[in-house]
Amino acid sequence: MALYVQKFGGTSVGSVERIKAVAEKVKRFRDEGHQIVVVVSAMSGETNRLIGLASEINDDPTPREMDMLVSTGEQVTISLLAMALQKIGVDATSYTGAQVGIRTDSAHTKARIQHIDTNDLREDLDDGKVVVVAGFQGVDEEGNITTLGRGGSDTTGVALAAALKADECQIYTDVDGVYTTDPRVCSKARRLETVTVEEMLEMASLGSKILQIRSVEFAGKYNVPLRVLSSFEDGPGTLIVAEEEDNMEEPLISGIAFNVNEAKLTLLNTPDIPGVASKILGPIADSNIEIDMIVQNVSPDGNTTDFSFTVAKTDFKATQRILTETVIPSVGGGEMRGDDNIAKVSLVGVGMRSHAGVASKMFRVLAEEGINIRMVSTSEIKISVLIDEKFMELAVRSLHTAFGLDAEAISDETA
Amino acid sequence: MALYVQKFGGTSVGSVERIKAVAEKVKRFRDEGHQIVVVVSAMSGETNRLIGLASEINDDPTPREMDMLVSTGEQVTISLLAMALQKIGVDATSYTGAQVGIRTDSAHTKARIQHIDTNDLREDLDDGKVVVVAGFQGVDEEGNITTLGRGGSDTTGVALAAALKADECQIYTDVDGVYTTDPRVCSKARRLETVTVEEMLEMASLGSKILQIRSVEFAGKYNVPLRVLSSFEDGPGTLIVAEEEDNMEEPLISGIAFNVNEAKLTLLNTPDIPGVASKILGPIADSNIEIDMIVQNVSPDGNTTDFSFTVAKTDFKATQRILTETVIPSVGGGEMRGDDNIAKVSLVGVGMRSHAGVASKMFRVLAEEGINIRMVSTSEIKISVLIDEKFMELAVRSLHTAFGLDAEAISDETA
Repeated sequence: MALYVQKFGGTSVGSVERIKAVAEKVKRFRDEGHQIVVVVSAMSGETNRLIGLASEINDDPTPREMDMLVSTGEQVTISLLAMALQKIGVDATSYTGAQVGIRTDSAHTKARIQHIDTNDLREDLDDGKVVVVAGFQGVDEEGNITTLGRGGSDTTGVALAAALKADECQIYTDVDGVYTTDPRVCSKARRLETVTVEEMLEMASLGSKILQIRSVEFAGKYNVPLRVLSSFEDGPGTLIVAEEEDNMEEPLISGIAFNVNEAKLTLLNTPDIPGVASKILGPIADSNIEIDMIVQNVSPDGNTTDFSFTVAKTDFKATQRILTETVIPSVGGGEMRGDDNIAKVSLVGVGMRSHAGVASKMFRVLAEEGINIRMVSTSEIKISVLIDEKFMELAVRSLHTAFGLDAEAISDETA
Repeated sequence: MALYVQKFGGTSVGSVERIKAVAEKVKRFRDEGHQIVVVVSAMSGETNRLIGLASEINDDPTPREMDMLVSTGEQVTISLLAMALQKIGVDATSYTGAQVGIRTDSAHTKARIQHIDTNDLREDLDDGKVVVVAGFQGVDEEGNITTLGRGGSDTTGVALAAALKADECQIYTDVDGVYTTDPRVCSKARRLETVTVEEMLEMASLGSKILQIRSVEFAGKYNVPLRVLSSFEDGPGTLIVAEEEDNMEEPLISGIAFNVNEAKLTLLNTPDIPGVASKILGPIADSNIEIDMIVQNVSPDGNTTDFSFTVAKTDFKATQRILTETVIPSVGGGEMRGDDNIAKVSLVGVGMRSHAGVASKMFRVLAEEGINIRMVSTSEIKISVLIDEKFMELAVRSLHTAFGLDAEAISDETA
């Protein structure tokens, strides 16, 4: 007998029929003798409907009242799911975030969980009940209803699993697991049996579509085994673990992430003096523009440097203006170049830590395909390269095969 | 400076525009320096929408989950109204029944209020805030959300007014007060400035369309001045008071109630032996049929009796069957007569207590119009007569004039 926390998102409970289907799924686990806590979001569309009502009344309502309003969405779902479970003979009770004792700080609309009181939950579970809990919401010290921000139901699931020391927190989504890369780009993409928390975080461009990053961090911090599964079909999904344990066949690379949402900017022949980097990036950060990759090369003469970085494509024009109008006049000299036809491709894998040669193999594979690398940055478990956008699919597919990620491929990654 | 509890029903908050109008009305009172607690129902249609969702899932859900579900309706309204107040510069905070500490028993879907904790409310009011409270709901000792049953928002308003010792509980409805009789039947019907709790209870057929009887009883018990007003136009409405105090011009009759929803049944020549009444009415009550008027006359020979009573028209056929199949065989003898073309007309007024002759005047007025009286029953502040249904309007109008109730009429009721 295991204790599972199962989280179903808005699409999974988006209609009466889907709520009934979730009840059937929960019943199957219950019938196997497991203890089940179910966490649900608002029915898809409901939160937007409520926000729409609010915006007709007040374009700047207090966050406290917004939380009071939108928290009703999950409350509707928990009661309907409990009714659906009762209908098929499963004893079930629903609880709001406040009732189950999910204590948060008072940062309305983006509250953080501080404590969960599990006494009542445990009593119900010991009585054989399925407990249905409203995701995304809690209560502060003064009894005000708070919400964790959009997508926060994942966090509720993980936090409950941590507090209850559950055997697994299962996040049901519209995909059947985490893949080595996006199957729409690489048809040989393979579902991973397991992936580490660090890898999920580094694969943000893949992972963020499936799970809230915050819930993954939370799971890592509290050692909660997290599993991503499909709401609509049966299957083992992907287990997200704190650390890859005793895995004899630990793969070198777990997945390939990519995005085409960045633009590259370069300042050529910038004087190589202390503090130049902050003089370049300071005005950009001041404009609330986020910088991703940063690379600085010393030029052959040793007196000037080429400084490159990437920003979101939507910030490309604004960044060019800041460089031209503010940065270049202040640091002196230099020529600006910009390119927004680029793609970032990243290899991610904890196996990289203990293996040399991943980068050189990556560069060799890309060179063999005639793909020029425009910029490189590395972390402990990730290597990212910038390439021309038109080569993105080719790069992902070549690397996917070369690093043995293809479905049914025999691994050959001895680098 | 007064403290008002103002209750707005589902129609009054049925749309974004109406919620904004309620906010404006509340602001006007606030601007006059009064402290305001607002109690609101769910937006009209919302409770039925939620019940509809539930019925698609489970035709017999537990009452606890129904309360969890439908209580979201008021929660949406309180947050939207608080936002609307904030938008027009009124500091406002919303509270669910649970948050404001409306403690009830655990009789889900028909809970009774046991206690209200007013500390937080008082603090907010002293801070100059308008407090918006969800009607119709509370919380039991274990923290489960309960509801007071349909229409229970009136009761919430009265209970809060009692707990806060408010100067007045104002119930905003779609009529502008309590009338001497239904204006659709008698064009001379007049709005009453005041009416006593007892009169409201006796005028159920008028009053129940405006106010929940239970909230009127509650107001009487706790001496809460209750005022019925229109949501949509300004005006003084009708004040419902515990006792008519020092009213020099206390009217003999306050109003005329009527209904055409009853049917009359008579057993003729029933043996006049002890216990015969319970033998007749027992089997009817056992079938959950409610009996209204009961009249028993001794017949001239002193050995038999004529026994008459009224039931709802919808129970007419079933009652006839019970009399024929069960009662007459068991009590022996007798002949049954039934009539469902009857109307009940009642004069109501606390002034009746200290005045003789109301009944004789009533009978005289009806006789002058050629209206035959089929049955009479009296209470301390009410006289009811059964007449042919076709005379109903004529009877109401004649009595309305004769007892000085007509708008702009000079009172002449010296009986």
